[in-house]
Amino acid sequence: MPELRKDPVIGRWVIISTERAKRPHYEHGKTPPRSGPCPFCEGNESQTPPEISAYRPGGSQRDGPGWTLRVVPNKFPALMIEGNLDRRGEGVYDLMNGVGAHEVIIETPKHEVNAGNLSDKQFEELLWAYRDRILDLREDKRFRYVLIFKNQGADAGATMEHTHSQLIALPIVPRNVTDELVGAGEYFKYKERCIFCDIVRQEIEERVRIVAENDSFVVICPFAPRFPFETWILPKKHSSYFEHATKLEYVDLARALRETLIRLNRTLNDPPLNYLIHSMPFQEMDNGHFHWHIEMMPKLTQVAGFEWGTGFYINPMPPELAAQSLREIVP
Amino acid sequence: MPELRKDPVIGRWVIISTERAKRPHYEHGKTPPRSGPCPFCEGNESQTPPEISAYRPGGSQRDGPGWTLRVVPNKFPALMIEGNLDRRGEGVYDLMNGVGAHEVIIETPKHEVNAGNLSDKQFEELLWAYRDRILDLREDKRFRYVLIFKNQGADAGATMEHTHSQLIALPIVPRNVTDELVGAGEYFKYKERCIFCDIVRQEIEERVRIVAENDSFVVICPFAPRFPFETWILPKKHSSYFEHATKLEYVDLARALRETLIRLNRTLNDPPLNYLIHSMPFQEMDNGHFHWHIEMMPKLTQVAGFEWGTGFYINPMPPELAAQSLREIVP
Repeated sequence: MPELRKDPVIGRWVIISTERAKRPHYEHGKTPPRSGPCPFCEGNESQTPPEISAYRPGGSQRDGPGWTLRVVPNKFPALMIEGNLDRRGEGVYDLMNGVGAHEVIIETPKHEVNAGNLSDKQFEELLWAYRDRILDLREDKRFRYVLIFKNQGADAGATMEHTHSQLIALPIVPRNVTDELVGAGEYFKYKERCIFCDIVRQEIEERVRIVAENDSFVVICPFAPRFPFETWILPKKHSSYFEHATKLEYVDLARALRETLIRLNRTLNDPPLNYLIHSMPFQEMDNGHFHWHIEMMPKLTQVAGFEWGTGFYINPMPPELAAQSLREIVP
Repeated sequence: MPELRKDPVIGRWVIISTERAKRPHYEHGKTPPRSGPCPFCEGNESQTPPEISAYRPGGSQRDGPGWTLRVVPNKFPALMIEGNLDRRGEGVYDLMNGVGAHEVIIETPKHEVNAGNLSDKQFEELLWAYRDRILDLREDKRFRYVLIFKNQGADAGATMEHTHSQLIALPIVPRNVTDELVGAGEYFKYKERCIFCDIVRQEIEERVRIVAENDSFVVICPFAPRFPFETWILPKKHSSYFEHATKLEYVDLARALRETLIRLNRTLNDPPLNYLIHSMPFQEMDNGHFHWHIEMMPKLTQVAGFEWGTGFYINPMPPELAAQSLREIVP
């Protein structure tokens, strides 16, 4: 059973998960070696754990071909779905069982390695799948948060080449989300406005860090980015929950997401990248301060001693220049 | 002029430094290409900026050969030593000039690429150099913190092969240090004891995460490590400031540091790694809660979407197993 352990000084949780050590090994910078057929491709459904859900437009059989998108448990999960938390102490230390969900969302039945090559329709399906899984998992009262994320490329932590997203359901609200909730809450207390709404307004007005815009979303390089070409997608209208977006908003988001990936691919030659969704935790009071968004970061620089030691980041690329390069691409 | 910019939601500072983009480029996983002679080797002193200080046992000339350790400004500094902070706002955003010091400590005149091959005496000199630079820089009242760190190997962010350490003096107490100060302060308020002293006591008693021990220091794999084989070195006696250690303590620390590097090198085949020193900030009231220490982390896994999104870390290696492997090495 994996363990959730808490650093006794700063309260940071880590997942100690020996199961993860068994997954396909890869060397730095190299695409993971393919030994045999890809388990994410249509026809190889038996090579994954039994599916949690799938979109099967023709009504085909579970764990068989005929799907357009498929959700399966991670074969090497960081957390285990069964069991109780069993919070306990060991002297000064605190720990609990590593209970949670770790799922893989296979975005296409074809062996596509870059999500930038999916269609708008496929991105819409992907967003519906994200939403469906969040709505299902929030019913499980052990969970406080679901993080949706994507690792693409070995240098961004992907061990499978076939394009996919992941989700992890956690029994704790993660630190980075709490930090945003607290920061947005303090701003609201002082200004009586949402900080994210103020950012959206200023960026649309100044237009120096804007990458793209449609009816519902704005794509920006943030003012204080950790990484070169870090890019955020924010809904223009205030909303705390990703899963509360309307059908039309998902259509607009699908386009914004696909086009942003294409802009990054063309500017940076298909970089390894991560993206993740920050949304309001389930069991917190929705005070109206939080504004969900997507953070996307190509992996171009190494995080080193300075960053580990300070929590500061050194970024050689001003977001104003990054946004200009990305804006010039016509997707 | 580089800029220090603050994320308006969570208050994280980043350094936007276009100067850094000019430094030697390297590809993932590859040792930086050597074009011409190494500027850190004895005889090539003219290829670095003029030295800040050096240990020259024979009394040789500044910026000439005859040194055992040399401190120079970073040729591609993240921060600039001249100027005022000029704190200002731009709408919702806050920024200031990127004022600070960024120095390189060249640990040996010979072209040695792995610090594990230095002698105990060289490590003692290195610790004295760290101390001398901290004592000098804390006189400059613009600075609130000096981070000492080491990047070894391209995958750990090093662009120079010749073994060296770095320091960055900052006009802000970094977030990671503040988090430790706050956490240790809360524990003290509740328990009236130093959390680090309690950790040292428990680890010495349980002996499951202990790597090594001498009169003044204990080397452990921490209970909740972010990374496989993460290793901390802590003084056994409570002390807030690295720069207040005694001569004898530096002798013990030199040995602990060298032997820990050798243990990691032998266990993990000379891994890329970072280490850093966390010490009490200069201008804070020394309340006796903080306990300085060294954090060392080999770079074996990729930080990916989950970690960026949550601040959690997934670690496939239990510290108890890591400590056992490291303990078995005879340096």
